[in-house]
Amino acid sequence: MSHLDAPSIIRTKRDGGVLSDDAIDWVIDAYTHGRVADAQMSALLMAIFLRGMTDAEIARWTAAMVASGERMDFTDLRRDGKPLALVDKHSTGGVGDKITIPLVPVMMACGGAVPQAAGRGLGHTGGTLDKLESIPGFTAELSKAKIRQQLCDLGAAVFAAGELAPADRKIYALRDVTGTTESLPLIASSVMSKKIAEGARALVLDSKVGSGAFLNTEAESRELARTMVALGTEAGLETRALLTDMSTPLGRTVGNAVEVEESLEVLAGGGPADVVELTLALAAEMLDAARVDGVDPAQTLRDGTAMDRFRELVAAQGGDVASLSAGALPVGAYRETITAPRGGTMESIDAMAVGLAVWRLGAGRSLPGERVQCGAGLRIHRRPGESVSAGEVLFTLYTETPERLAAAMAELDGCWSVGDEAPPERPLIIDRITSGD
Amino acid sequence: MSHLDAPSIIRTKRDGGVLSDDAIDWVIDAYTHGRVADAQMSALLMAIFLRGMTDAEIARWTAAMVASGERMDFTDLRRDGKPLALVDKHSTGGVGDKITIPLVPVMMACGGAVPQAAGRGLGHTGGTLDKLESIPGFTAELSKAKIRQQLCDLGAAVFAAGELAPADRKIYALRDVTGTTESLPLIASSVMSKKIAEGARALVLDSKVGSGAFLNTEAESRELARTMVALGTEAGLETRALLTDMSTPLGRTVGNAVEVEESLEVLAGGGPADVVELTLALAAEMLDAARVDGVDPAQTLRDGTAMDRFRELVAAQGGDVASLSAGALPVGAYRETITAPRGGTMESIDAMAVGLAVWRLGAGRSLPGERVQCGAGLRIHRRPGESVSAGEVLFTLYTETPERLAAAMAELDGCWSVGDEAPPERPLIIDRITSGD
Repeated sequence: MSHLDAPSIIRTKRDGGVLSDDAIDWVIDAYTHGRVADAQMSALLMAIFLRGMTDAEIARWTAAMVASGERMDFTDLRRDGKPLALVDKHSTGGVGDKITIPLVPVMMACGGAVPQAAGRGLGHTGGTLDKLESIPGFTAELSKAKIRQQLCDLGAAVFAAGELAPADRKIYALRDVTGTTESLPLIASSVMSKKIAEGARALVLDSKVGSGAFLNTEAESRELARTMVALGTEAGLETRALLTDMSTPLGRTVGNAVEVEESLEVLAGGGPADVVELTLALAAEMLDAARVDGVDPAQTLRDGTAMDRFRELVAAQGGDVASLSAGALPVGAYRETITAPRGGTMESIDAMAVGLAVWRLGAGRSLPGERVQCGAGLRIHRRPGESVSAGEVLFTLYTETPERLAAAMAELDGCWSVGDEAPPERPLIIDRITSGD
Repeated sequence: MSHLDAPSIIRTKRDGGVLSDDAIDWVIDAYTHGRVADAQMSALLMAIFLRGMTDAEIARWTAAMVASGERMDFTDLRRDGKPLALVDKHSTGGVGDKITIPLVPVMMACGGAVPQAAGRGLGHTGGTLDKLESIPGFTAELSKAKIRQQLCDLGAAVFAAGELAPADRKIYALRDVTGTTESLPLIASSVMSKKIAEGARALVLDSKVGSGAFLNTEAESRELARTMVALGTEAGLETRALLTDMSTPLGRTVGNAVEVEESLEVLAGGGPADVVELTLALAAEMLDAARVDGVDPAQTLRDGTAMDRFRELVAAQGGDVASLSAGALPVGAYRETITAPRGGTMESIDAMAVGLAVWRLGAGRSLPGERVQCGAGLRIHRRPGESVSAGEVLFTLYTETPERLAAAMAELDGCWSVGDEAPPERPLIIDRITSGD
């Protein structure tokens, strides 16, 4: 019998203590193997949420989660005789944040190699996998051999974290339903355990700031970015972060299939300006981190090469490429609209409220393992700063289960406004954080 | 779909908010019926632990737990044409606290009727049911008809809370393994939901103070007593509490079978003075609360009537009465002793350390539903204030699984002391709290 036990470890953190390395290693291993129950881990997570963790605890917690599974290594792979430019990006989670979907093919077109261990929706934010699975047939369950082959041949593989950091996978699912998502130590360790294990050699983080971010203040988001950059650097990854605005949703769509549709518009050279701007800024940062010179990511959107790479990627992963034509993806049959009570200018749309509304519509989970609706989502017809005529449609809500519409409408109530003045311009990209900061 | 959901309720409490009546009713009902997961409830319990609850929230939480099952009613029962003196006692949980075992038969012998919904071990404290189940054959799984019959014919029934407040039963099991035991709102609501539902009309609470109590300070134990007395009074029970010392274990035994043995000594007119004192003080309080006059509880120990009633009770509940002879109960085969490093006086024995040691020996649980060892326990050969010779045995530890001995020894390390001076006398009964306080 080990002298460590879950109740004692929970009590230590509950009472504001620091967990020993042994305690962290033990509880992560025991939870991974089912010797610590979900209920015990969730109590510990709530205690961590409310009591915090030191930098040393976060680093050990992250390392223990990496060690719970295999750390992938693609440094032996070659393309044209040269090592791959293994680079990935991760967002701390936002509302309408579909950036991974256009960004991965942009990087493929630029000569990068992206091993993207993608996640599922957590709380009010969507997950890239939930979104991509709106494409009929698309699968992220890739064998290791298939991931290696795609990285060499195509320059990307989008796969379910699955065997990577299995401790994190269990904890992530638990946090989603236990009100323990918005915690700096838990976010940083979750993100970085997967990213360290997935085999990227360079990593760009998108740390969200604003109402739709998991953390409430810019200071916290900055601290999260600093913590993650330090964890990545310590693990040997060239890591940096952008701080970006998440006070209003990204683009004009929030949900699953609707976000894929919008990503296709971006890949076709159009799409909302903010989605394009953030995609290109992150691509530039990734190319720099991976030391790839002399390519212009914007060109890959203009000349259609990014779109070609996306279609190849979807096809390689079993997706029905025909469904990528406009209007072919399944959007929820039940709809409701919100119209403008007056004319003027859209002043604000709160990201958190939109995220919760879309979660209510069925795009997210309230119990672990629950199926999400690919057709659930919301369309924003007028973004902040755009002019509005009285009576015109501002939002359309979509769901496959009409009884969910009322609760979603209630979430939006009072969380957007039409007025007389254009809102002040907000920069989308607020700051850049490197290991020197 | 309800507009209430577990993650939102957890977040409200996590962030220091007050739960609405609707939210409390919903989460208790949904958890009872499996629509809220253990992991969600344990996160909520940790949030309640760290954020607290208002008196109004505690009252609603208690009422919701009572409403999760049936509230028993024995007011129609008669003995010799008169209503029964329905009265019960509950302890907030201590180390070596076997008082229920001698107290119930004393009350039977005095003409009371005790519907005792007894509990199992929680954290470092033992449970009356775990202890009584050391008696071969003893069962607390009684039908309602059997409980009614025993109350009329014998004057007591000791039964598993079972169908009573099923929400509490689930939550209690969860708290035991998730480090959420020592919380005033959770203790008060747990105790009072069972006691309100079990059908007693009068109730005496034993609220523990000191290192072995769930709450750390006398002020907290006093506040717990005040809260429970208010909850009972509001539910129509004549309720009062004693504040009693739990800085050192009660009596000379801690565990399961060993505590039954010591209870038998008390019922035989002997036993440790503190166990006898507390048994009689609680009996006097119960008789007063139930308005039973003209009986002397001490006499029932002297004249053997309480012992007779105990044997009748054990027999009625399937227990092997022959096993109640001295030395017949199964005590763990593996033993370890601690001897005195010097002569002098036993100065102190810390109740919490002893509770944890006995839990390590196998008398308590670290996962829900785990079997406890009836033979696990500890014998205290020298209590605080008693003189000690160098080299004599101070403690004997018992277990059925010898690999547990080392961890138990470690818990005791440094938690008792032999010195030159007798420790100051501590009153066992510190105060009395009634609904007027």
